[in-house]
Amino acid sequence: MKLVQDPAEIAALAAGWRGQGLKIALVPTMGWFHAGHLALMRRARQSADRVVVSLFVNPIQFGPGEDLAAYPRDLQRDSELAAGVGVDVLYAPSATDMYPAGFQTTIHVAELGRGLCGASRPGHFDGVCTVVMKLLQQTQPHQAIFGEKDFQQLAVTRRMVRDLDLPVQIVSHPTVREASGLAMSSRNSYLTEGEKGQALCLYRAILFARAKVKGAAQPLSAALLCSEIERNISQVPGCVVDYVEIVDADSLERCETVNENSRLIMAIKVHERVRLIDNARLFYL
Amino acid sequence: MKLVQDPAEIAALAAGWRGQGLKIALVPTMGWFHAGHLALMRRARQSADRVVVSLFVNPIQFGPGEDLAAYPRDLQRDSELAAGVGVDVLYAPSATDMYPAGFQTTIHVAELGRGLCGASRPGHFDGVCTVVMKLLQQTQPHQAIFGEKDFQQLAVTRRMVRDLDLPVQIVSHPTVREASGLAMSSRNSYLTEGEKGQALCLYRAILFARAKVKGAAQPLSAALLCSEIERNISQVPGCVVDYVEIVDADSLERCETVNENSRLIMAIKVHERVRLIDNARLFYL
Repeated sequence: MKLVQDPAEIAALAAGWRGQGLKIALVPTMGWFHAGHLALMRRARQSADRVVVSLFVNPIQFGPGEDLAAYPRDLQRDSELAAGVGVDVLYAPSATDMYPAGFQTTIHVAELGRGLCGASRPGHFDGVCTVVMKLLQQTQPHQAIFGEKDFQQLAVTRRMVRDLDLPVQIVSHPTVREASGLAMSSRNSYLTEGEKGQALCLYRAILFARAKVKGAAQPLSAALLCSEIERNISQVPGCVVDYVEIVDADSLERCETVNENSRLIMAIKVHERVRLIDNARLFYL
Repeated sequence: MKLVQDPAEIAALAAGWRGQGLKIALVPTMGWFHAGHLALMRRARQSADRVVVSLFVNPIQFGPGEDLAAYPRDLQRDSELAAGVGVDVLYAPSATDMYPAGFQTTIHVAELGRGLCGASRPGHFDGVCTVVMKLLQQTQPHQAIFGEKDFQQLAVTRRMVRDLDLPVQIVSHPTVREASGLAMSSRNSYLTEGEKGQALCLYRAILFARAKVKGAAQPLSAALLCSEIERNISQVPGCVVDYVEIVDADSLERCETVNENSRLIMAIKVHERVRLIDNARLFYL
């Protein structure tokens, strides 16, 4: 596996591959790889001749007071993990190369980026869209693989790609969970084992909602179900709800009643320190 | 020459050409071709295997009360003119295909798009950037050719391409003028011959400023020179200054004194009806 840090070098590599008719897949990440990232890389490996994994802790998607400086980083460990699943290039540019002096361009997806995490993290999705666009242009992939864990990010990215006619296929991959059910996240490394147990309230909410939906004789009120979930979560020590919503999986607009296309989507803060998100379909198809 | 209206069709054509290793050049236009457009097309023809001219009167770069509905259109005439200079494809998508229901993505270039025409036409350059990005993605050119007449548009586009790492070369072409010196513009078709004579105040301002600069024993104050030009223009019946500025050609920031990289850049309104722009270097090199 090759480590590339220079944007011009990855662009030249990608242009060469394109010229040879090779299929390129990109897995954009912020590093500190866990089984979720590795699943995305394996998925990319299945369908592409060249797999590029980008590793960039993107400063412009962090707000003031968020965990940019604390975000876990270990390039050596990540390199070994990526090499182990057959990645061709680990692309880890510097922030100065990505955003040199004079940088001033932003991509904004209006409706899909507004609510949920967009409401709690103003400017977050502008930062995500802008960096994803840059990475797509630098690496020229035929496919880019995103995890469903960041469900709003996936929806916003799909919308950007569609609205701007980018010739890339966005592929999503189901959330990978620990044996306990906790969704894999680099931010889990901020948690003690005890706190991880508390954070399981997210997964329990998914199971609870699915059971309710399965047992319901008539369409469930989304608002009532969300209130129940919020109440359950707020009874867990250290856990504070940021939002709990049941939304349409495409528009991310609130559902009146739970239907086949509904998605439960949640964010909590654990011990005022660690922000976690999770989401799931409520109907099993 | 082929006329293409479907975004999917032009994208497939471009992918095919790319696959064969052919060089593509794009000339983005709003149609109603004049000698300025034809010069851009000839320039594209020189360096590319396939020349695509896009013709799209982009609604999102017009503000409320601007001339979107009145903008002159004649696809038949434009087709003949483009064919005459060896264009391969005239790509004329519909507004509904470019901006289908649910479209919500915008590209924003902050500093360069703020002043000058950006101040008089809020949102204009967001609309320009967004459509240019779409056209670049749809047609996948190696080069895109822009006229210097729209100097701020050129600067904003170059910035977007650089900031977002788009693998395309932006080529600029000098402003083409009528024999009188009036800069070619589709909007000249709104003017009577008499009004065209009045609009010559823009070209006379360029000649006046160049003569001043040439004769100056010491660096000229940009502000004083602009005031003189504003005074001259305001003495022409029917002409009202929107702005007259002397700016750095790269940053578009105001110059204190006129230097080798200074550009005189102006917008006026003729008979409260027609907005015209012009610009030029002040030092001949």
